[in-house]
Amino acid sequence: MMKIIVNINKSNYPIYIGKNLFNKRNVFIESINTNRTVIITNKSIAEFYLNKISYTIKSVGIGVDSIIIPDGEKYKTLLTMNNIFTLMIKKKHDRNTTLIALGGGVIGDLTSFSAAIYQRGIQFIQAPTSLLSQVDSSIGGKSAVNHSSIKNMIGVFYQPTSVLIDLNCLKTLPKREFFSGFAEVIKYAIAIDKFFFRWLENNIDSLLKLDFKLITYCVQHCCKLKKRIISVDEKEKGSLRVLLNLGHTFAHAIESYMGYGEWLHGESVSVGIVMAAKTAELIGELNQKNTKRIINLLKRANLKVKGPSKMKANDYISRMIYDKKTIDGKINLILPTKIGLSKIYKNVNQQTIIKAITSCL
Amino acid sequence: MMKIIVNINKSNYPIYIGKNLFNKRNVFIESINTNRTVIITNKSIAEFYLNKISYTIKSVGIGVDSIIIPDGEKYKTLLTMNNIFTLMIKKKHDRNTTLIALGGGVIGDLTSFSAAIYQRGIQFIQAPTSLLSQVDSSIGGKSAVNHSSIKNMIGVFYQPTSVLIDLNCLKTLPKREFFSGFAEVIKYAIAIDKFFFRWLENNIDSLLKLDFKLITYCVQHCCKLKKRIISVDEKEKGSLRVLLNLGHTFAHAIESYMGYGEWLHGESVSVGIVMAAKTAELIGELNQKNTKRIINLLKRANLKVKGPSKMKANDYISRMIYDKKTIDGKINLILPTKIGLSKIYKNVNQQTIIKAITSCL
Repeated sequence: MMKIIVNINKSNYPIYIGKNLFNKRNVFIESINTNRTVIITNKSIAEFYLNKISYTIKSVGIGVDSIIIPDGEKYKTLLTMNNIFTLMIKKKHDRNTTLIALGGGVIGDLTSFSAAIYQRGIQFIQAPTSLLSQVDSSIGGKSAVNHSSIKNMIGVFYQPTSVLIDLNCLKTLPKREFFSGFAEVIKYAIAIDKFFFRWLENNIDSLLKLDFKLITYCVQHCCKLKKRIISVDEKEKGSLRVLLNLGHTFAHAIESYMGYGEWLHGESVSVGIVMAAKTAELIGELNQKNTKRIINLLKRANLKVKGPSKMKANDYISRMIYDKKTIDGKINLILPTKIGLSKIYKNVNQQTIIKAITSCL
Repeated sequence: MMKIIVNINKSNYPIYIGKNLFNKRNVFIESINTNRTVIITNKSIAEFYLNKISYTIKSVGIGVDSIIIPDGEKYKTLLTMNNIFTLMIKKKHDRNTTLIALGGGVIGDLTSFSAAIYQRGIQFIQAPTSLLSQVDSSIGGKSAVNHSSIKNMIGVFYQPTSVLIDLNCLKTLPKREFFSGFAEVIKYAIAIDKFFFRWLENNIDSLLKLDFKLITYCVQHCCKLKKRIISVDEKEKGSLRVLLNLGHTFAHAIESYMGYGEWLHGESVSVGIVMAAKTAELIGELNQKNTKRIINLLKRANLKVKGPSKMKANDYISRMIYDKKTIDGKINLILPTKIGLSKIYKNVNQQTIIKAITSCL
């Protein structure tokens, strides 16, 4: 088991990464300092892990309630949170309760946001079960729900008490979800780490086959990258954390247009990365060879590199202006300039963006 | 015009107090550093001030939209916030927008919470129009909505960019609302400031007649008290800010039982203060003479000192266990021990609390 300490604003919290974490009493003894817990999860994940994790927590004398919410991005709404609060109040949960997010990105975003605002803030633990949430969304304290078809429009920054990454979860993950997680892995490499990109090129085939030694290194490495970034730029006010949005402005447009859940987040991010690379190429900031390397690695990870056939370029633009980075109608984009280097561009011509999108349809 | 600077966590913000503030262009130039604003208010306040404040803001070249929400505590819900967000997204408000809370406590709580979570946080200004919000709720960053009939169950701490207290607003305030604001004024005095209590005893009659010199001093003094407390204990984690909840655990039970809006917040707080004093007397922490002084001052301010006739003591207890200070089923109470001194009590016998409540029915 590896333990990575994240330092944010004088406080710090551990990320535990290992096999069979959900069975380890010690991890929960160290992570929970309240009398009660509420596990928030969905039906399919509950079938695999809810009993196991509940058993371990109860065995150390801590109370466990659970709330099962419907599965999928389209339930990431204030309405679902409303229901969570009603159930918590019904069971008289006070500030001496820890929420546990058992699931992927949707569960993590909803649970962290719920913890942030229940009674003005209670503790919570991330127990991410998908590759995507293990390498990215469970770390860094971004919480959110969607609103009016705009992704992650409402939320706060709120850090967990700890993050418990049980690598065994990857074994039960549906293949499509597993592959989609690699979009965020590859995103780190393109945005900030050229050595990691090369490592991924060398190992992607074995990673997809779930070579456990390699996947362990991969998850650990991503967690370390994220830790480093959020330690200096927790709330994305500097010039660093924003780079991790590479591909996301395009991706959110796809998710919102297609209806949440139709295209997985990682699948959309993959296409978004290609669109960002094409944009960078068009404005002369990325050479064609690097675009090809990027596309090639995404393809090898079974990820999509073309947008949904029914979306036109304007369908992207009309949604991209709602991006949280958009200020005064100007779309801000993270673009790669080399493999392992990226920058925010605030004045890309809209026609150029449309041209880049069109080349990926 | 007076300017009080609040220092919280390395950042600081001004409270401006004066006459005709809503007409002063300088105040808005200093307070707003975004291109656009959204004023959130209700119909009755809009009639008096919306045009005036909009005109001043537009005259300095800043855009103004407004959202009118229904009037009253019962609309302080996630549903109302949902509607606010829908309207903001429709008008494409991005992070370069400042929300302005133009109204009393309900508007302030809703607007600050909306600002805290829209796009993970945008700027906001408090422009409190009631006595209660000018002396208390607009300062200190507590935001909240009610849930499942429990008051202020969901929220965050989120500080404003500035607080604009236009004392002229008190002239248009309905008498009942004006009087109810004195419950929070008197609360400060009982909880932490014996000299202010004596001052109130000497001046309450003129204050109720809206003697402008006295009311100005009164509002300024309360703001200074609040500023001092939140500067050392922003998030109520220490032993200081919690004292300002004097009377509130009882009061929230009244508001929730009676249906929000039936009894005003200040009216309920007044009764709650008496119940707290009676509890303190019963456990031998406050002498009877002081209880009498407290009741006498509240009565002179036209405030209620007896609970609603249809509520029994158990109707209080069953709601008080949902208080945010309640941990593991134990009701925690702020009790006065002298005029100007108070403490948190964690182990008051439930029978004693019931006896104290009963004496105020």
